[in-house]
Amino acid sequence: MSRMAFFADLMGTLFARRPGNAAALSRVPVTELCETLLSPQGEVSGMQRAREILTQYRAMDDEGKRAFFRHLAEEFDIDPEKLIEAAALYRDNRDPASFTQLRRETEPRRQELLRRLNQAPGATEELVRMRLDLLAMMKDEPDLSRIDHDFAHLFASWFNRGFLVLRHIDWGTPANILEKIIEYEAVHAINDWNDLQRRLRPGDRRCFAFFHPAMPEEPLIFVEVALCKGVPGSIQWLLADGRETVPDSDFDTAVFYSISNCQEGLRGISFGNSLIKQVVEDLRRDLPQIRTFVTLSPVPGLTRHLRAVAGERPEVAALLEAADAKDPGALTPHLPLLKKLTADYLVNVKRPNGLPADPVARFHLGNGALLHEVHVLGDTSANGFRQSCTAMVNYLYDLPKVEENNENFVRDKTVAISKSVRSLLAQNRSSENGEAPGWLEAPQKLLGLSGSQNRS
Amino acid sequence: MSRMAFFADLMGTLFARRPGNAAALSRVPVTELCETLLSPQGEVSGMQRAREILTQYRAMDDEGKRAFFRHLAEEFDIDPEKLIEAAALYRDNRDPASFTQLRRETEPRRQELLRRLNQAPGATEELVRMRLDLLAMMKDEPDLSRIDHDFAHLFASWFNRGFLVLRHIDWGTPANILEKIIEYEAVHAINDWNDLQRRLRPGDRRCFAFFHPAMPEEPLIFVEVALCKGVPGSIQWLLADGRETVPDSDFDTAVFYSISNCQEGLRGISFGNSLIKQVVEDLRRDLPQIRTFVTLSPVPGLTRHLRAVAGERPEVAALLEAADAKDPGALTPHLPLLKKLTADYLVNVKRPNGLPADPVARFHLGNGALLHEVHVLGDTSANGFRQSCTAMVNYLYDLPKVEENNENFVRDKTVAISKSVRSLLAQNRSSENGEAPGWLEAPQKLLGLSGSQNRS
Amino acid sequence: MSRMAFFADLMGTLFARRPGNAAALSRVPVTELCETLLSPQGEVSGMQRAREILTQYRAMDDEGKRAFFRHLAEEFDIDPEKLIEAAALYRDNRDPASFTQLRRETEPRRQELLRRLNQAPGATEELVRMRLDLLAMMKDEPDLSRIDHDFAHLFASWFNRGFLVLRHIDWGTPANILEKIIEYEAVHAINDWNDLQRRLRPGDRRCFAFFHPAMPEEPLIFVEVALCKGVPGSIQWLLADGRETVPDSDFDTAVFYSISNCQEGLRGISFGNSLIKQVVEDLRRDLPQIRTFVTLSPVPGLTRHLRAVAGERPEVAALLEAADAKDPGALTPHLPLLKKLTADYLVNVKRPNGLPADPVARFHLGNGALLHEVHVLGDTSANGFRQSCTAMVNYLYDLPKVEENNENFVRDKTVAISKSVRSLLAQNRSSENGEAPGWLEAPQKLLGLSGSQNRS
Amino acid sequence: MSRMAFFADLMGTLFARRPGNAAALSRVPVTELCETLLSPQGEVSGMQRAREILTQYRAMDDEGKRAFFRHLAEEFDIDPEKLIEAAALYRDNRDPASFTQLRRETEPRRQELLRRLNQAPGATEELVRMRLDLLAMMKDEPDLSRIDHDFAHLFASWFNRGFLVLRHIDWGTPANILEKIIEYEAVHAINDWNDLQRRLRPGDRRCFAFFHPAMPEEPLIFVEVALCKGVPGSIQWLLADGRETVPDSDFDTAVFYSISNCQEGLRGISFGNSLIKQVVEDLRRDLPQIRTFVTLSPVPGLTRHLRAVAGERPEVAALLEAADAKDPGALTPHLPLLKKLTADYLVNVKRPNGLPADPVARFHLGNGALLHEVHVLGDTSANGFRQSCTAMVNYLYDLPKVEENNENFVRDKTVAISKSVRSLLAQNRSSENGEAPGWLEAPQKLLGLSGSQNRS
Repeated sequence: MSRMAFFADLMGTLFARRPGNAAALSRVPVTELCETLLSPQGEVSGMQRAREILTQYRAMDDEGKRAFFRHLAEEFDIDPEKLIEAAALYRDNRDPASFTQLRRETEPRRQELLRRLNQAPGATEELVRMRLDLLAMMKDEPDLSRIDHDFAHLFASWFNRGFLVLRHIDWGTPANILEKIIEYEAVHAINDWNDLQRRLRPGDRRCFAFFHPAMPEEPLIFVEVALCKGVPGSIQWLLADGRETVPDSDFDTAVFYSISNCQEGLRGISFGNSLIKQVVEDLRRDLPQIRTFVTLSPVPGLTRHLRAVAGERPEVAALLEAADAKDPGALTPHLPLLKKLTADYLVNVKRPNGLPADPVARFHLGNGALLHEVHVLGDTSANGFRQSCTAMVNYLYDLPKVEENNENFVRDKTVAISKSVRSLLAQNRSSENGEAPGWLEAPQKLLGLSGSQNRS
Repeated sequence: MSRMAFFADLMGTLFARRPGNAAALSRVPVTELCETLLSPQGEVSGMQRAREILTQYRAMDDEGKRAFFRHLAEEFDIDPEKLIEAAALYRDNRDPASFTQLRRETEPRRQELLRRLNQAPGATEELVRMRLDLLAMMKDEPDLSRIDHDFAHLFASWFNRGFLVLRHIDWGTPANILEKIIEYEAVHAINDWNDLQRRLRPGDRRCFAFFHPAMPEEPLIFVEVALCKGVPGSIQWLLADGRETVPDSDFDTAVFYSISNCQEGLRGISFGNSLIKQVVEDLRRDLPQIRTFVTLSPVPGLTRHLRAVAGERPEVAALLEAADAKDPGALTPHLPLLKKLTADYLVNVKRPNGLPADPVARFHLGNGALLHEVHVLGDTSANGFRQSCTAMVNYLYDLPKVEENNENFVRDKTVAISKSVRSLLAQNRSSENGEAPGWLEAPQKLLGLSGSQNRS
Repeated sequence: MSRMAFFADLMGTLFARRPGNAAALSRVPVTELCETLLSPQGEVSGMQRAREILTQYRAMDDEGKRAFFRHLAEEFDIDPEKLIEAAALYRDNRDPASFTQLRRETEPRRQELLRRLNQAPGATEELVRMRLDLLAMMKDEPDLSRIDHDFAHLFASWFNRGFLVLRHIDWGTPANILEKIIEYEAVHAINDWNDLQRRLRPGDRRCFAFFHPAMPEEPLIFVEVALCKGVPGSIQWLLADGRETVPDSDFDTAVFYSISNCQEGLRGISFGNSLIKQVVEDLRRDLPQIRTFVTLSPVPGLTRHLRAVAGERPEVAALLEAADAKDPGALTPHLPLLKKLTADYLVNVKRPNGLPADPVARFHLGNGALLHEVHVLGDTSANGFRQSCTAMVNYLYDLPKVEENNENFVRDKTVAISKSVRSLLAQNRSSENGEAPGWLEAPQKLLGLSGSQNRS
Repeated sequence: MSRMAFFADLMGTLFARRPGNAAALSRVPVTELCETLLSPQGEVSGMQRAREILTQYRAMDDEGKRAFFRHLAEEFDIDPEKLIEAAALYRDNRDPASFTQLRRETEPRRQELLRRLNQAPGATEELVRMRLDLLAMMKDEPDLSRIDHDFAHLFASWFNRGFLVLRHIDWGTPANILEKIIEYEAVHAINDWNDLQRRLRPGDRRCFAFFHPAMPEEPLIFVEVALCKGVPGSIQWLLADGRETVPDSDFDTAVFYSISNCQEGLRGISFGNSLIKQVVEDLRRDLPQIRTFVTLSPVPGLTRHLRAVAGERPEVAALLEAADAKDPGALTPHLPLLKKLTADYLVNVKRPNGLPADPVARFHLGNGALLHEVHVLGDTSANGFRQSCTAMVNYLYDLPKVEENNENFVRDKTVAISKSVRSLLAQNRSSENGEAPGWLEAPQKLLGLSGSQNRS
């Protein structure tokens, strides 16, 4: 305990550091500053130069930034000729000296430049934003992607799981952090502070986020959790204004109903899997009465998929028409069909690489979760009607099986499903078998999926 | 303020994380665990495997560790053939695809392995210790140094200045940290807790250390500071038991009298320069009455150097003989000579690369400090007699000139010296000129130093 | 620093404490529980009983609470007969034994009861709320005020200045504290979180609150501060949406524009004077560029006073009529008069005890402040028109004179005023002298104020 | 969690407060300063005066302090005449006004003086030390005890259980706190930092202390705990250097082997009972495997008692002679007798008020503990031989029975004992019955104890 306090205390200086007087540097061109920063002097007295480069960068317009990136891409690149030479030397000698020389050529100079930029106070956050600019500019200038390799490489090191810190977010969290939770919520929008309070304050709600020590006011990812009695199937029910709080003694299930990545500049650095597992572990320790860990997840690709097949399937077209009305009543006759189609979509519709077409399914199944249940009228918001005709699903994190599920998914692309989903799919097949080779058969046969589904 | 508190709070979880039940993994061979950790499954469920690898490693004897390292060196190395191929492709195409492929070949697989190992709780500290083992084994098996490139590369990223935290160490610091200060003090040994108290508690003493968030109980480097009236010349005077504390209103000088690196496993990652500059900045802010920032430093290579020249210079031999007696009285007649020789040694005696022979001089001059003053009878401990015949020196950190000094030192190998040291050296030359071409002339001429010394 | 961290850490347990299982106690009548709590057993095992009494109290309706208070008033009172006897004994003997016996009779038993109730976790806050109930019930049942003596006595001890903690409130403060700032703001209402943010986030705004360690989520009093260039005269200007933040290098004045007591249950325990002086001291240390510390204060009694005199003074009646229109334009012709009347009201209109009639004036003048400036159109909100016809004033905290001002105010009831206010008042007199013995003359003569006003 | 962090943060200001410039006050006599501090000005600008009074007090010699106390005793006392008058008025009128007047007379002015002194930073600690002086001077000047009533009254309010904070003391605790643990340990002396480390660092040791927020560097009381397998009977065994740490999975018993009050100036304010119960509660929550909570306690009055009876009992005289040799071997033949005598002493030997003669027994039995076991050769230190002929005992805190035990002890002075102690006592009686009416019979009969012992 007191060791944490000691550490807590020392973190203060992270914030107290202030840039020195950099006035003299402000008229030196940024490219020249970069060269000096990489020189031996740069190693010793680089903090001011690093600060100045970042300040100049921030003041640039788009063209300035583009020119800066081009400079990094060209002038700080790997030299393939020298690299080939060094690699050949190492191939022939295999001795420490030639390896050392080789390593000198394998890394573009800009990587060391980025590392030295990071010594300036607050630099980590600015470098994450710099990459955000770069990602945008790469779209129409793919050569700039060379720089992104170095950002990605460094960020993978810097934001390594071992350096992340899990933190409870609640109504006692500083407001400047909470406003970022409002801003970054990506799944079920938080409208205002009252709405936020409804998600954080009740005794049956939790929220957790990962932070990095060098960016202590910026959550990296967060998950919102509802503690329930039983597995819920409707997000509106879960978030209903005026609902009653479930007492501690009653809840048995933790529902992850919203996971939001916060830093677009950290694209490709994956936090979600670690976050879920850490939160499951913490909840199990603190609330042993919780036995079931599930998500309540959207099916974002469903409507698009249904539109693609509606041409050949009039009953699907009718369903879509009813969904367009955004009226639960109109949708009622189509619900059994919707349920079957949803299960089928998630289990059987794949991308060319054999993985599920639905991105949320890919994420949770890839983490070792199992498709547990399908709910219709699970999200009756405008967005819910639009993206999935109101369908939602639960993915179950069954800890003893997570690793096996993950292994099967990675190796064989097998989708782990529950008994209940299995019988839904069986209905699909039998009813279709009775009719004619339906549209759903095709991908199943194609992928030989029928035999590869897990039993749960 | 409260933002720090928020952050302080969140750091708690760094310590609360516990390894899961790894019983099942404990019988899998470590090399197999490494392969799985690098596989796609490893990305998702790697924390337990990482923990298990580190646990197995820790339990290994020297032979086991050596075998483990050989495996890393051979099986996880760069493949030069593939690298040459990819580099040639990039040379010819210069397109993003070929660059991506090239980057895949430039990094040995073991680097990603080390990154994934780091996700286990407490892993950073264990990896630092693992490198310590490696550094020892590299001595008689240089091929293992290939692995050290990856440790050094990762540690340079992880222990980047931007992630370090400066912390006051005082008598209110947790005892588990303080006992490490006792243990790691490398310059003037701290005998026990009473001795430590004398260095931390008085109002005219300070101590600062750098920490890394992932190793919060392990200082990386620390510096001990005495606040004085005027620049002191004797370490025994400075640390005298029973001395009077200088009141706040009286001190005008901060003396860095001991700097100790704590983590041998972080060899090559330099913290000293950043630490000194940060401490200077902090002290200037908190104690504006302090105008002078100097060291009181040993001259560890002096005696060795004098022995080397004593054969040709009988007065030096006499001085050494007096010093061997470890009796200040015996040394008295030789003190003027000792003073001159010390200045001369630090300014004029060089390594083949033109940098000062004395390591402490290299460090401070390389940071942009200036050789300010030479003191005889500055360290009358047994060790002081042995390594420098009692000589000590002050290096001055004159902030407005630090950058210029550093630049001259890096570019021209010029040693910045004070007027007082200059006149000491002038005595040397004139007296020697009066006699005969002395031994000291040679290096001066060789290096053309007479004209290149800074004025301060 | 680390000592604070240590302490910070230990505060945790304040919150972690939980009431034991009190099921068995819940059927014991509260009066019986009170008796047991006061018995020797109560001293040893009283925490559960204390908790139970507080829980039963909280569940009572108004009649139950009234009965509880009557019980405390009657059964736990001082016994005057015994007290007289003990006092007579002490008068005659003056020895330690008789003094001890006397002290036993001077304190009603309910005081020890309240102290023992306080040992339950969270009890302090509940006792503050209990007194709030009592204050309400005392109004129509004055005998209950006997209990309030004990509350007041204990709270004066418990909330002694030496135990209060000053804390910055900013946008990084936990939301549960911030929502209380919104709730408790008593002077210029904070409408919502955006409004709050405008008062806390800009670099030229500050907010400070006193807290008590046993009620860490409940501010006791807070003050909102604007850092300005020069002394402002309009609250709307000060709080204008979209105004520009004053840069650090520009502000020279700290303006206390709102001070709110938060705990009605602590009525009579004064925090405002300590808070202002502590904040002045802290701001002086942290922002030495600030030279002037003033308030921007309402004049809550002004309109009421003007109405009282309007019958005899038609120009005042006209001013009031214009103010009723709540239209700055209509008020314009009356502004010079309003300014003079405001100064006169604050300086010359008194309560029977000779202190200023205006409560805000009493507070700041009693703290040693000086009436610095009068502003018309200073508060053009509906409330501003209503209570003071838009007038606002600055009270100046001129630290070197605060004590002298306070002494004069306490001893002679002298109101310290600035030169500018003095000339305003001189206008009053001269113009009135020119006309006729005005209504304002009377109190001046009565109190002989003309010669007793301070010079500033 | 974050709420604590928020609070932790705010505590910082407790330490940051600094006394203002009090130069002008330093020549005002302390008695005059006291009068001003109690005046209305004192209420407003009293912090500096309070600081000055405390500073002057600290600088006084014994005579100065004695004069100061006499002044407080005489000039700030209750006025019995006025008190009698006010009490009579209240007796006759029973109305709020007369009660208010009465309360004004019941409290000596010095109590408010002490409250106002407490507003100075750090004053609480100085007032505790001031009382320490007073307690010493009261011995030969009993009239000063009148002042002590006010100290005792205020301290009982200020150090109320509701304001205390329980804190783990471990090897990560700041050194300035740990050195106080060394200093204040009153039962089994801690020789140095290594000895301290042996009591804090191992996984089977705990230490807890109460702190007050206004004295965060001063423990009020602390208890040292050993976690054991089974109930131990020897302090040397428990604290043996080189002993093996009991693994978490093995221990089932928490042993309170040392409880030390730290602040003599808080005499009469009892913390021990609360501390033990809080620690028992915390340990039960964190380490559910612990089922038994006992002490390992000295029997400080035993030898004295035995000497008193040795004249009539030659076997006791022989035992004492063997104990004087401080040689366990010599004592061996006497151990059965020693065991019986110890049990008898604790259960049957009483003070005139019927409570046990042994102070440690009074403390634990008064808390509701039960005399669980008697050990001979339990403390073979010189002190152990001297005070109890090596006997030690366990008191058992059996939570479900604590309240009942306490009630019986308070009401009937019944000592709760275990079956094992009961049979020890039965041996006493039967063997003595067999012989002759022994010395032990007398007090038993006298107090009629035979029927009043609890069964456990």
